[in-house]
Amino acid sequence: MHLATFPTTTGASTVVCVEADRRQPLDAPDVAAYLRMRAAGKSPSPTTAVLDETAGPLAVVTTPTKVICCGHNYRAHITEMGRGVPVHPTLFTKFADTLTGARSEIAIPGNTADAIDWEAELAVVVGADLYQADAATARAAIAGYCVANDVSVRSWQHHTPQWLPGKAFDATTPIGPVLVTADEIDPADGLRITCRVDGVIRQRSTTDDLLFDAPTLLSYISMFTTLRPGDVVLTGTPGGVGAAATPPEYLHDGSIVETEIEGIGLLRNTITISARTCSTSGVTPFERELR
Amino acid sequence: MHLATFPTTTGASTVVCVEADRRQPLDAPDVAAYLRMRAAGKSPSPTTAVLDETAGPLAVVTTPTKVICCGHNYRAHITEMGRGVPVHPTLFTKFADTLTGARSEIAIPGNTADAIDWEAELAVVVGADLYQADAATARAAIAGYCVANDVSVRSWQHHTPQWLPGKAFDATTPIGPVLVTADEIDPADGLRITCRVDGVIRQRSTTDDLLFDAPTLLSYISMFTTLRPGDVVLTGTPGGVGAAATPPEYLHDGSIVETEIEGIGLLRNTITISARTCSTSGVTPFERELR
Repeated sequence: MHLATFPTTTGASTVVCVEADRRQPLDAPDVAAYLRMRAAGKSPSPTTAVLDETAGPLAVVTTPTKVICCGHNYRAHITEMGRGVPVHPTLFTKFADTLTGARSEIAIPGNTADAIDWEAELAVVVGADLYQADAATARAAIAGYCVANDVSVRSWQHHTPQWLPGKAFDATTPIGPVLVTADEIDPADGLRITCRVDGVIRQRSTTDDLLFDAPTLLSYISMFTTLRPGDVVLTGTPGGVGAAATPPEYLHDGSIVETEIEGIGLLRNTITISARTCSTSGVTPFERELR
Repeated sequence: MHLATFPTTTGASTVVCVEADRRQPLDAPDVAAYLRMRAAGKSPSPTTAVLDETAGPLAVVTTPTKVICCGHNYRAHITEMGRGVPVHPTLFTKFADTLTGARSEIAIPGNTADAIDWEAELAVVVGADLYQADAATARAAIAGYCVANDVSVRSWQHHTPQWLPGKAFDATTPIGPVLVTADEIDPADGLRITCRVDGVIRQRSTTDDLLFDAPTLLSYISMFTTLRPGDVVLTGTPGGVGAAATPPEYLHDGSIVETEIEGIGLLRNTITISARTCSTSGVTPFERELR
């Protein structure tokens, strides 16, 4: 089954079940809400909601309680960066506010838009509560998979050794276009994952190169915190990010980022550097504060 | 005004307005919901909800959309650790699930309970939407202040350079006992902040030693993400944590941690190392997975 989240003509949102050209709205506002209902034993009914065809899909999940990401997780990328093989997954977070749609513009305020980079990723969406779960239990709790791009503002990511600021700009991580349920695909089969920037392939790998696979990541996370239906885990990016180029290459106003995973689909997002700044002096209020 | 969140005899929760010995329930399930209602122009009405007197207060906010924490923020602590003065705040996150009550037991599963440490902190609760705000705007959006303890599992914090796992164990960060509204106290006045472990003072400072004060932290965060009513920012801990002792000293089963800030109140939490493990082999499933 393929599930997506779309805006409706009434200004609300709805889950749709996508089959070939047919899109059947279901009575849940987003895929996370749908998964919470399913976990509670309810089956959301078909509705007659009318999709807003002028807008693309929303983030597949708009109401996760947790969005957790893994860095340094493709073996070839770890090797090319000259790093040792990690014993534990490198985890950081995003917020529900960080997610955006498969065709959405990614707008970054001009006063903070410095060194914007791409990171194609396989996203896992959780379908059941998981706490202190072994990998087999975690595997059974995977609702399905999406394509994501962990678009990162490298300058803010490296303000300090903790990556949060550069990883959590509002509405910069597209996730979609659909959730493909776990009965249909298995990343261990080596799904092709690709990132193109302005038509040029920058990242190309397969999802069987993951050091920590999805069940292992979910099991590890569940050792310290409960994962819940609708929560999202991003599994890391292959080699080929802009920061690793010599010299580094970054996204700019108008850049088109296409992220694709075999069997799931394609994200196509345009970067927009917005003119909005909050300061008339050319520096952020925060920078003023420090002077 | 002092606001708290208590369980009720019906198994729900309610905000209470605390005045001397009187506790008036209001029609909101937690202080975050109360602040969202206030921000929407509604004034929650008094109710006749009956508090469950067998239980202590819950986390003051149980439904924040963001819990963001700052490390390395007390000047004296930065100096004693031999660090340079940072230009940007060091930020990491917790989840709503990480928070717990002012008198709650802090239970950590035995298979992950290694090097548990204390971190007394001033917590700021947001009262209005904030995006790309200067410090003056951020200051005006502060709803009030609470006491918190960023109890940390150092072993898991240092699995990788990203601190998340050790900072986000479920129900390990007490926050309370009340929210004191910003019209009543100002951390710039130098409120005494103290942490006692089993009756021995381990941390003692004043809140005017913060390098990045609350408005500055909120302004910085608002450069990349929207802060919303009920969101929480922990402002960092003074010197005297267990990891900095020679040799390091940590909390154990039965340790009593008391955290106090002048003008707000006292948290009193007992550490419990639970027998629960998820594995019969003496290692976590995650460790098994890697072998």
